[in-house]
Amino acid sequence: MHQHDIAVVVGVGPGLGAALGRRFARAGFAVGLMARREEALRAIETEINDKGGRAAAIPVDAGDPAALAAAFVRVRSVLGAPTVLVYNAGAFVPGGILDLSPEALETSWRTCCYGAFLATREVLPAMRARGCGTILFTGAPASIHGIRDLYTLSVGKFGLRALAQVLAKECGPQGIHVAHIIIQGAIDNERTRGRFPHLTGAQRMAPEAIAEMYWQIHLQSPRAWTQELDLRPGDDPFMS
Amino acid sequence: MHQHDIAVVVGVGPGLGAALGRRFARAGFAVGLMARREEALRAIETEINDKGGRAAAIPVDAGDPAALAAAFVRVRSVLGAPTVLVYNAGAFVPGGILDLSPEALETSWRTCCYGAFLATREVLPAMRARGCGTILFTGAPASIHGIRDLYTLSVGKFGLRALAQVLAKECGPQGIHVAHIIIQGAIDNERTRGRFPHLTGAQRMAPEAIAEMYWQIHLQSPRAWTQELDLRPGDDPFMS
Amino acid sequence: MHQHDIAVVVGVGPGLGAALGRRFARAGFAVGLMARREEALRAIETEINDKGGRAAAIPVDAGDPAALAAAFVRVRSVLGAPTVLVYNAGAFVPGGILDLSPEALETSWRTCCYGAFLATREVLPAMRARGCGTILFTGAPASIHGIRDLYTLSVGKFGLRALAQVLAKECGPQGIHVAHIIIQGAIDNERTRGRFPHLTGAQRMAPEAIAEMYWQIHLQSPRAWTQELDLRPGDDPFMS
Amino acid sequence: MHQHDIAVVVGVGPGLGAALGRRFARAGFAVGLMARREEALRAIETEINDKGGRAAAIPVDAGDPAALAAAFVRVRSVLGAPTVLVYNAGAFVPGGILDLSPEALETSWRTCCYGAFLATREVLPAMRARGCGTILFTGAPASIHGIRDLYTLSVGKFGLRALAQVLAKECGPQGIHVAHIIIQGAIDNERTRGRFPHLTGAQRMAPEAIAEMYWQIHLQSPRAWTQELDLRPGDDPFMS
Repeated sequence: MHQHDIAVVVGVGPGLGAALGRRFARAGFAVGLMARREEALRAIETEINDKGGRAAAIPVDAGDPAALAAAFVRVRSVLGAPTVLVYNAGAFVPGGILDLSPEALETSWRTCCYGAFLATREVLPAMRARGCGTILFTGAPASIHGIRDLYTLSVGKFGLRALAQVLAKECGPQGIHVAHIIIQGAIDNERTRGRFPHLTGAQRMAPEAIAEMYWQIHLQSPRAWTQELDLRPGDDPFMS
Repeated sequence: MHQHDIAVVVGVGPGLGAALGRRFARAGFAVGLMARREEALRAIETEINDKGGRAAAIPVDAGDPAALAAAFVRVRSVLGAPTVLVYNAGAFVPGGILDLSPEALETSWRTCCYGAFLATREVLPAMRARGCGTILFTGAPASIHGIRDLYTLSVGKFGLRALAQVLAKECGPQGIHVAHIIIQGAIDNERTRGRFPHLTGAQRMAPEAIAEMYWQIHLQSPRAWTQELDLRPGDDPFMS
Repeated sequence: MHQHDIAVVVGVGPGLGAALGRRFARAGFAVGLMARREEALRAIETEINDKGGRAAAIPVDAGDPAALAAAFVRVRSVLGAPTVLVYNAGAFVPGGILDLSPEALETSWRTCCYGAFLATREVLPAMRARGCGTILFTGAPASIHGIRDLYTLSVGKFGLRALAQVLAKECGPQGIHVAHIIIQGAIDNERTRGRFPHLTGAQRMAPEAIAEMYWQIHLQSPRAWTQELDLRPGDDPFMS
Repeated sequence: MHQHDIAVVVGVGPGLGAALGRRFARAGFAVGLMARREEALRAIETEINDKGGRAAAIPVDAGDPAALAAAFVRVRSVLGAPTVLVYNAGAFVPGGILDLSPEALETSWRTCCYGAFLATREVLPAMRARGCGTILFTGAPASIHGIRDLYTLSVGKFGLRALAQVLAKECGPQGIHVAHIIIQGAIDNERTRGRFPHLTGAQRMAPEAIAEMYWQIHLQSPRAWTQELDLRPGDDPFMS
C-alpha cells in the first residue's frame, strides 16, 4: 500500500542529500535514498525510520544505466511511484586537460548529467499518468561558467542544465514542474571546512536552508513556477 | 508606535502590486502602497484596512526624485521604517527607434530603474542599522533579452537587473537580502486577457501565486539566499 | 562633395577611441571624432589630417541631447552622412549606494546609454535610405555582471547592451549591422598602468588590436553577422 | 617536410566544414579533413588538391577515442602537427525524453563534446611546445538554450561550450587561443532549404562568410582575443 507521497533523492551524502531526505520525510513523504556510498545512506535511512518516517536506502551508481534502472524498480516496489525526483548526484576529478584521462570526463558526465536523464525517464510515466510531479536538479557554479581545472564538473553540470531546460519545455504543459537550483556557495560540512578554512560561518550555506527551498519550489503553484534559481550565502565571499 | 513589520510596495496596480500588498498584510505587515494612479491604490488600501490590516496609500510618480523622497518621509512618519521594499513599478512606450521620443526612453528608465535606486536609498539606512531587511525587484522577459520595439522597457529593466546585482554585493554582507524576480509570463488580468486572448487559463500567471513567492524569498535564511529567479506559468506558451 | 565613406566615433580619448579613428581613417574613411574633452580630440584630428586622412573633431557631451544633435548636424555638413557609427563613450563614478548622488547615476546612464540612443537616431535615416550601415557599441565587464561599487557603470552598460539587442532586431532586416563588443580586460594606457600596476604586458589589451576587430566586424557579410562578442587579453588575469 | 601551417577540421560535410577547409587551404595551410562520411570528405579533398592546395581526408567517427587518436597519428605523419584545430562535428536525434534511447544521448554527447576534448588533447602538446595555436569550436542555438525535443544536441552543445570556457582559461596564458563560435541561423545548404523552405536567401547564412570569420578569429592578436561570438543572418528570422 502506498498512501504516502514518494520522493526519491539521488545523490545522498551527509550534507545536502541527507537534508533533502529529512525535509521531504518531515512533510510526510516516503523517501527513496540513492547514492554510491552506502554508509551515509544507511545512517540517514535509520535516522528517518527511527523518527517514524519511511525511508528506503538503495545503494547505486547513478551513472550506470542498468544499476539505476534496477534501483528504480526497487523504489517502485518498496515505496511506490515517485511524485518527486531530486537529482543531486555529482562527481568530478580536477585537473588540466592533459592530466585527465578521457574516462574521467565521461564518468563525471555520466554521474552529473546522464544519470539525471535516466532517472527522469524512470519517474516520468507515472507522473504523466497523474498529470503532476516535481523534478529538481542540483546545479553549481560550474553549471553556468566553465571553471579552471574543472573540465569534468563543468561539462557535466552544463549538460545537466541543458537537460533541465529541455525537460521543462516538454514537461511543463503536462503538469510536471522541472527546476534547476544553482548552489553558488560552499555548503557547510567537514569537507568544505577543510577546503575553505577562511570562510566564516555566515559564508557557509546551511544544508537545511537549501533543502527548505527545494521544498518551497515543490510547493509552487503551476500559475507561478520557477525554472531556475540560485542559492548562496548572504555574505557571499565569491560574489565579486 | 510601530510594533508592526513594515513593507512598502512601489508600483501597485490591480494585479501583482495589489496581491503583494495583500500577502504582506496577511502576514501582519503594515503596508505602504505607492503608485502613480490613485484609484487602484485606494481600492486596495481600503480592502486591507477593512480586513483589519494596516495600509497606507501614497500616490507618487516613482521616477520623480523629490516626490518619491516625500512619499518615503510620509511612510516613515505614518507606518515607520520599512523592513521590506518591493519595487514593482514599470512603464514603457512601444515603438521603433525613430518613432519614440528620447523623453519616452528617459521616462521609462526613470520609472523602471532610477526609482528603484532612489527607493533603495530611502530604506537602506534603517535596514543597515538593524542588520536586516529585504529588497525585491520585479523583472520581466525584457530584463534579460532586448525585445523588438521595446527599447523603453528593455533599457529600463536591464538597468534594474544591474542595480539588483550590484546591490546584492554591497548589501548581502550587511544582512540585507536583495533579489530580482523575473516574471516570464502574462499575469492574469483584464489587460493581458485583451492583449493575449489566445492564452488558456493555465497559461496565465496568478498574481497571488507570484506574491506568495516574493513572500517565500523574504522568509529565506541568509544561509541560502536567492539572488535571481524566474516565475512562469507551467504551461508556458513563450518557452520555445 | 562626400566621396568618402564616413565613420563617426563618439567617445574619443587617447586610447581606444583614437585607435578606432585611426583604423577607419587608414581604410579611407572620413572620420568624425566626438568627445567631451577637446585635448585628445584635437591631437588625433591633427594626426589623421597630417597623414593625408580626413578627420573632424567635434567636442560634445554625448549625454546632452541638444549638443549631440548639433554635433551630428555639423558632421553631416562637414563630412556627410555617416555609414558607420561607433559609440565608445562611457562615464562612471564609483561608490556605495548611499555615497553616490542620484545625479551621478543619471549622468552616467546618459553618457553610457542614452547618448547611444540619440546618436543612433541621428545616423539611421540615411543608413535606411541606403539599405546599409554599421553601428558598433563598446561594452565592458559591467555590461553583463553588476560590479561591486559600480552602480553607475553597470546600470549604464546593461542599458547599452539592451539597446544593442533591440536595435539589432529592428535594423538587421534593413541591412544595418548592429554589434555589441564587450572589452573584458584593461586597455593598455597610462590610466590602467597606474590602476593595475601588477599586470604584465601580455595582460594588457592593445587599442590597435581592439580597433582592428571593430573594423573586421564592419567588414562582415550580412550572411554571417556578429551581434555580440568579447575581446580580452590572451593571458587574461580576470578570467578565473 | 612540413613547411606549411597545418589546420585540422573535424566534422566536414558539404557545407560549413568544406568552406572551412577551403578557407584555410586558400591561406596556404595544409588541411586535415575528418568526418564520418567519406563521400563529402573525398570531394573536398580532391577539390583542394586539384587547386594546388594540400589536403588529406581521414574518415573517422569523432566520438570514438581509439579511431580519433589514430586519425591524429595519421595527420601528424602525413601533414605534421596542427597549428589550428576546428571542431565542427555534431550529431543529434530529435525526440521526447521517453522516445529517445539513452544510447542516443550518449552518442550525441560523444560526437558534440567528447570528441572535442579528445581532439584538443591530440593537438595541445605541439601547440604548447610552440607557444601558439588556435582552437575553434562550432556552437549552435542549442549551446545556450535548451531546445524543445533536442535533448541530444542541447546536452552535447552545452558541454562543448563548457569545455571551450575551461580550455580558454588553461590555454590562454600559454599563447593558445580558444574560441567558441555560435552559429545562430540556418546555413544555406540542401538540407536547410528543405527544412526551412520559407526562408529567403538573406535569411540563410553563407558557409563562406562563416568560414571567413573563423579565419579572422585565427588572425586576432593575443592583445584582443575573442572567447565567444555569435554569427547570424542579417535578416534573422529567429531573432524575436
